[in-house]
Amino acid sequence: MYVAVIGGQVCSPEEERIAYEVGLHLAKSGAVLVCGGLGGVMEAACKGAKEAGGVTIGILPGPFRSDANPYVDYAIATDMGQARNAIIIRTVDAVVAVGGEYGTLSEIALALKMGKRVVAISSWEIRRRGVPDDRILNADDAAAAVKMAVGQ
Amino acid sequence: MYVAVIGGQVCSPEEERIAYEVGLHLAKSGAVLVCGGLGGVMEAACKGAKEAGGVTIGILPGPFRSDANPYVDYAIATDMGQARNAIIIRTVDAVVAVGGEYGTLSEIALALKMGKRVVAISSWEIRRRGVPDDRILNADDAAAAVKMAVGQ
Amino acid sequence: MYVAVIGGQVCSPEEERIAYEVGLHLAKSGAVLVCGGLGGVMEAACKGAKEAGGVTIGILPGPFRSDANPYVDYAIATDMGQARNAIIIRTVDAVVAVGGEYGTLSEIALALKMGKRVVAISSWEIRRRGVPDDRILNADDAAAAVKMAVGQ
Amino acid sequence: MYVAVIGGQVCSPEEERIAYEVGLHLAKSGAVLVCGGLGGVMEAACKGAKEAGGVTIGILPGPFRSDANPYVDYAIATDMGQARNAIIIRTVDAVVAVGGEYGTLSEIALALKMGKRVVAISSWEIRRRGVPDDRILNADDAAAAVKMAVGQ
Repeated sequence: MYVAVIGGQVCSPEEERIAYEVGLHLAKSGAVLVCGGLGGVMEAACKGAKEAGGVTIGILPGPFRSDANPYVDYAIATDMGQARNAIIIRTVDAVVAVGGEYGTLSEIALALKMGKRVVAISSWEIRRRGVPDDRILNADDAAAAVKMAVGQ
Repeated sequence: MYVAVIGGQVCSPEEERIAYEVGLHLAKSGAVLVCGGLGGVMEAACKGAKEAGGVTIGILPGPFRSDANPYVDYAIATDMGQARNAIIIRTVDAVVAVGGEYGTLSEIALALKMGKRVVAISSWEIRRRGVPDDRILNADDAAAAVKMAVGQ
Repeated sequence: MYVAVIGGQVCSPEEERIAYEVGLHLAKSGAVLVCGGLGGVMEAACKGAKEAGGVTIGILPGPFRSDANPYVDYAIATDMGQARNAIIIRTVDAVVAVGGEYGTLSEIALALKMGKRVVAISSWEIRRRGVPDDRILNADDAAAAVKMAVGQ
Repeated sequence: MYVAVIGGQVCSPEEERIAYEVGLHLAKSGAVLVCGGLGGVMEAACKGAKEAGGVTIGILPGPFRSDANPYVDYAIATDMGQARNAIIIRTVDAVVAVGGEYGTLSEIALALKMGKRVVAISSWEIRRRGVPDDRILNADDAAAAVKMAVGQ
């Protein structure tokens, strides 16, 4: 199973801690962690996954593998800017969003469009024409989020 | 000025009427209309733009120009699936969303990330960690939406 | 009919003259000219097409429409670097190569793979395992190249 | 070091044997093998790499990880058709081409444009305006090709 961890390149210490734990639990579950390969939530999640012996893949927006954070095992240099978000989401079975800015929201939306499971911790809520959309699953902590993402 | 009209490939008669009027007003304002090139909101907007003598560009997800709706003047065949959404948003100065599904939400999010103006009619609301995000400008009708989009 | 004119961003005065004439003849034939939107062969071809009242589309590698040469009517900002070459070739029915560097060769190769007609003036020859490949049609001048490209 | 092995999805038994050996030698050198993830040369190379305990990454043109050949360790589903060729080449430090059709030629050309080392076995020769271009390094067998690719 491949699971994306998505969230801001800049994030709060609390989000960093949660992302680290999401990475840790994903690795323990045996899932491959896929992310955008940069800092913030992405780096914290990769760090957690590596601590638990997991595998991490970073799909980068720029042209250089060397832009990947130090906890990325395998870096893909797309040189495609934000279009690389679509590759991240296509590649995974489920997504865990931790906090996040508009880039994260674009990935959540693509995941819902592509029928991938989306679990969120302190992330976006969405409403269409005034009606809350409940396709985003909300989790209270990292352990619960990973359980929901990997379908246990 | 280039403005994207985004929304569902399947839409209600009301959304179709609004999209048509958005296209009409955009053409009158002199803006080039950019869209995903397919049916529903995209087709209705292109039809409106053509009726007012405007120019329409369709950036298609598939490999064939012939998939464009009949009101697209210039079709671009990307063969890149949802990654083409990023090209639509990069190319334009502003976005008008009419209704819309998750694909539309992904485009709204990319537009906000890229700092493009986003105007919505009966479309998505977004909240982050419980707090409504007011970067999406809401318009009541097509004329108002186009005024806001072209900055008049 | 959509025809791509491909070639170097830096080119010789002779290639510039030929590209200009290719653009001129394409416009007279009624074809839409598609190119990478930048300078050199691309700019000269667009200039020729505009002089003859044609329409030009520039599919740019970077994120800004403003990078297009002044003879591009409609600019698409892909922000996808060299991956935009695949969009240019997908979008057209035929390709005219004028001189050109490795980027041009990559476009010729994609066009052959996608089954698009390829006409070359002073451009690349290709041989596979020692055997010349004759799928690239060679033309002596711009008028002949355009005739071959538009299939007259 | 990341090295791409490129070549036809359909190939001769001889090319298959060579690709297998290229994979084997790449894995022994410690390089990560990157390829398009499908059959033919790609599958044979991955098989060779796995036999020698290497790591293989497949960057697929379609939307499903399950399209990867059974010797791909990590599959990336781009859903971007031929535009994924640009991602393969961006991601690697060097390329080994075994035989190959037009898709392979497009990757060789992109690699030369991006300044990556290109080693070819029974693959394409290219000539510009009648002059052979000698940027493609020719190797007689898999062991020599891998030595040249990894710069030993």
